Amino acid sequence: QEKVENKIPLVNESLKNFLSTKDGRLVASLVAEFLRFFNLDFTLAVFQPESNTLNGLDGRENLARDLGITEAEGTVGGPLLLEVVKICQQKKISG
Amino acid sequence: QEKVENKIPLVNESLKNFLSTKDGRLVASLVAEFLRFFNLDFTLAVFQPESNTLNGLDGRENLARDLGITEAEGTVGGPLLLEVVKICQQKKISG
Repeated sequence: QEKVENKIPLVNESLKNFLSTKDGRLVASLVAEFLRFFNLDFTLAVFQPESNTLNGLDGRENLARDLGITEAEGTVGGPLLLEVVKICQQKKISG
Repeated sequence: QEKVENKIPLVNESLKNFLSTKDGRLVASLVAEFLRFFNLDFTLAVFQPESNTLNGLDGRENLARDLGITEAEGTVGGPLLLEVVKICQQKKISG
């Protein structure tokens, strides 16, 4: 029988630390929402176990609320990340 | 021998259209940069063929320039998406 207790655990420390922050979870949730939006099911099926986020990432509704994005006809046709990038670009132009 | 010419091509039309826009490529490039930043190699190995972005997505340097983000000590420690989300949040608070 194989001794598993001596194996080095496959923990991604930098990602684990990132996901322990509010903004970190927000970013990872936006990535997952992007993958779901475009039905990238194979990528999502690898992303969830590799990032250890099988449960716990926020869905689109909660994300939009946290980011202060009001969903409208113009936003529902794209992933939420598109809105985030657009707001970021407006900010850079205006300020 | 299998007839491949009669198979329905696995083309993700909505993603293909999205990637044909400037902002769409920017969003997909930010997702890829996030995966690379945290060494999510397995996810990236599935994402690239599934999204058909094996070549052509922008790297971090070009992305930062396109988004008007100046890299500094505080930004290089995280994925570029974190900066984008932070800018988005500043915008919502200030404006």
